[in-house]
Amino acid sequence: MISPVPILSDDALHFLQQTIGAEFVSVNASDRAYHARDQSFHRAHLPAAVVFPETTAHVSAILKYANAHLIPVTAWGAGTSIEGNPIPIAGGIVMDFLRMDKILQVYDADFQVDVQPGIKYKDMNAKLAQHGLFYPPDPGANASIGGMIANNAAGTRTPGYGATKDNVLRLEVVLANGDVIHTGTRAVKTSSGYDLVHLFVGSEGTLGIVTAATLKLYPLPEHFSAVVASFETIAGATRAVSAIMGAGLGPVALEFLDPVTARNLNTTGEFKLPEAPTLLLEFHSATPHAIEHELALAQELCNDNGCTFFETGVGRAERDRLWKMRHSTYEVLVRNHPSISFLVCDVAAPVSKYPELVAECEREIRALSLPGASMVGHAGDGNLHPLVPYLPDDEASHARAVQALGNMVRVALRLGGTATGEHGVGLGKIQFMPEEHGASLELMRTIKRTLDPHGILNPGKMF
Amino acid sequence: MISPVPILSDDALHFLQQTIGAEFVSVNASDRAYHARDQSFHRAHLPAAVVFPETTAHVSAILKYANAHLIPVTAWGAGTSIEGNPIPIAGGIVMDFLRMDKILQVYDADFQVDVQPGIKYKDMNAKLAQHGLFYPPDPGANASIGGMIANNAAGTRTPGYGATKDNVLRLEVVLANGDVIHTGTRAVKTSSGYDLVHLFVGSEGTLGIVTAATLKLYPLPEHFSAVVASFETIAGATRAVSAIMGAGLGPVALEFLDPVTARNLNTTGEFKLPEAPTLLLEFHSATPHAIEHELALAQELCNDNGCTFFETGVGRAERDRLWKMRHSTYEVLVRNHPSISFLVCDVAAPVSKYPELVAECEREIRALSLPGASMVGHAGDGNLHPLVPYLPDDEASHARAVQALGNMVRVALRLGGTATGEHGVGLGKIQFMPEEHGASLELMRTIKRTLDPHGILNPGKMF
Repeated sequence: MISPVPILSDDALHFLQQTIGAEFVSVNASDRAYHARDQSFHRAHLPAAVVFPETTAHVSAILKYANAHLIPVTAWGAGTSIEGNPIPIAGGIVMDFLRMDKILQVYDADFQVDVQPGIKYKDMNAKLAQHGLFYPPDPGANASIGGMIANNAAGTRTPGYGATKDNVLRLEVVLANGDVIHTGTRAVKTSSGYDLVHLFVGSEGTLGIVTAATLKLYPLPEHFSAVVASFETIAGATRAVSAIMGAGLGPVALEFLDPVTARNLNTTGEFKLPEAPTLLLEFHSATPHAIEHELALAQELCNDNGCTFFETGVGRAERDRLWKMRHSTYEVLVRNHPSISFLVCDVAAPVSKYPELVAECEREIRALSLPGASMVGHAGDGNLHPLVPYLPDDEASHARAVQALGNMVRVALRLGGTATGEHGVGLGKIQFMPEEHGASLELMRTIKRTLDPHGILNPGKMF
Repeated sequence: MISPVPILSDDALHFLQQTIGAEFVSVNASDRAYHARDQSFHRAHLPAAVVFPETTAHVSAILKYANAHLIPVTAWGAGTSIEGNPIPIAGGIVMDFLRMDKILQVYDADFQVDVQPGIKYKDMNAKLAQHGLFYPPDPGANASIGGMIANNAAGTRTPGYGATKDNVLRLEVVLANGDVIHTGTRAVKTSSGYDLVHLFVGSEGTLGIVTAATLKLYPLPEHFSAVVASFETIAGATRAVSAIMGAGLGPVALEFLDPVTARNLNTTGEFKLPEAPTLLLEFHSATPHAIEHELALAQELCNDNGCTFFETGVGRAERDRLWKMRHSTYEVLVRNHPSISFLVCDVAAPVSKYPELVAECEREIRALSLPGASMVGHAGDGNLHPLVPYLPDDEASHARAVQALGNMVRVALRLGGTATGEHGVGLGKIQFMPEEHGASLELMRTIKRTLDPHGILNPGKMF
């Protein structure tokens, strides 16, 4: 790995100031501290400097210089990631895309948009709504598009629309040596050349830095319906998931809440959920009539699998109420347990293994004997987020939580799954890469060395 | 590039015979001739030998030897590709996957299957039907799955289900040096490590050879409907495509036929199509009731855009009739023009540019002044297949057709599209790679050199 660079030389600072303007190069304590950690529990590391480029040419010039002078460069979006992905553990330069946050072009007839990486997911969608369009991958937080591309972020709408990797058509990327490449095409179908777009998506800024992207968009749906369905057992809920997908019902979202989460939500007084394994579903339809028939079929399939509670709501308001509830789970949990902190685990397995994944993860969090231990997940893609409690300011408790988290990852891998469904590798999942990838990890390393021979890009990540 | 190997040394032959059995190593004229060309017009090149491995260990041992002795190795599936993709232009070994054609495991509850690369698309789907499942990318021909992965093949169902690249979860790949890697996961969602699966999909056997794959499957749909809609203008048809996608109707297939194709089909007496720009659509639904409402909305949207003929059919038989018609277009064309041969061009552009793409390609084929000049295409993804006529045994006529094909590719690139939507690069599209990929082509070359330093894998392709 490249040597840490805790402070920049005067020459380097001078170069940066000359290149992008002195006011966009910061070495002040608060800027450096703000860019020293994301929303994970991983330890902060101060960068030597924070730069705010405005153009691709700025990014290129900085990388060319950094590559020649062996200065680490870590790209920064919104800092909302939760595996330590952008923590600059070797110091050097953090490159914040605050100023590269524009929508460059909307292609209404093609349902596509060109954007800069610094634009925030929610801000972008607010603007796209004026075109009747939206970008579906929703990480929950108001992440930057650049960060979402780096981590291949996903969320509740993945069953219907896919993850980030399914919705990026074209990228402008600056390589470690400062070369600028354009890869991909606005044609939605191509078999031309190697698929470099997918190589960069999910590479966490370790192979190049994205400076522009063309994203696939979708028409804002006209007709919504929402379902809350509770089950006797998690196995029943999972069978219902398979049955619903198998019937071709095509839910846009298919979320799981465990009984503890349901109980927590009920404390707000706003909801009256059975304290049982529960699914939340969203359906879209092009016509209002189709929805009733789809809901009737969904209910039948749930009932076949031990459903004890089935509530539907039709229309945007009902849909919004459902997601307000889902998105409040973490906040309500924290509010109800003021003396507890939580690690958010992110694992995924084949859907058929979901009951086993849930059962094993439940055993891990119960063993910690702390209140609030609970789980939510994107059941439609086998993705589970155990919320792992620990006592803040108690190192042993924190260590036990981290240990539990590791055990859960090993369960997911044993079940044929993955160490991370949507949060990325960052610092939190590096240790599991050899077990998950085996011999292909060496090929990844080879690709890293080829694209970034001096290891200046987000050093200490991925391997 | 590696030097051509027109014949194998006795040592090499002996090694191959020892490794996989003498009866599975052929140097006879007919085996070599059969593996000298695909279904394209590109000139045949004889391999030095054809081998039929049975296991991944066979493939590994052969590649290790070939890499050490600088012998070209070109993987072979069904030979149905149409850009010269598997023509062994440097001789050496053709590796035919005839014996590696098994379904290894079906995961019913996960809608997934593990297969070997030699299995044919149609044969696999016939077996999967017993599980109520199917693999949607349909290249038309009975291609091998290995070949489909190599070319990132797609077809009529791409609007609903995506191309090959959207439906491969996991690969076993033998690298040029014989190393075997496993990449990807059965979890449908992952953000773990670099996306090597997508690097190999579409790489045409130039980066490694796939020996097993996990594919995404889908439940066989229960309720079908089919639509034939003709329009005054191609621009109207294209606007209808956008309107249908924009309404969230989600057609599974959305095909285009030009007036000449409609006229050709009418000569069979089986169809009575207006001789006008025509769309063929297929819809799936989980319930029979939804379909009527969807068809009514589709008709309204078509009428808004100058639709002059709208015929619907509900049920499997109607759907099958539609696709029988679509898949007979080439055969009927050839039957009606016995003295003409046709090149099949494959270009794609953003959907909004489809009218311009169609108009420019039409100008090119009309200028050839030969009967049968016509076009079909996957309008839902902006993919067009002009059928370019030439006189067989007339070199000048063939050269004019090839020239027209090149002009069409340049049009597609000018419109922001791609040189190949689904047939791959092979020999036919190599010359357009610099124009399409610019500086990113050098990165592709670097990756090729890194993974296959001696250039033994399908030499002379991609670059």
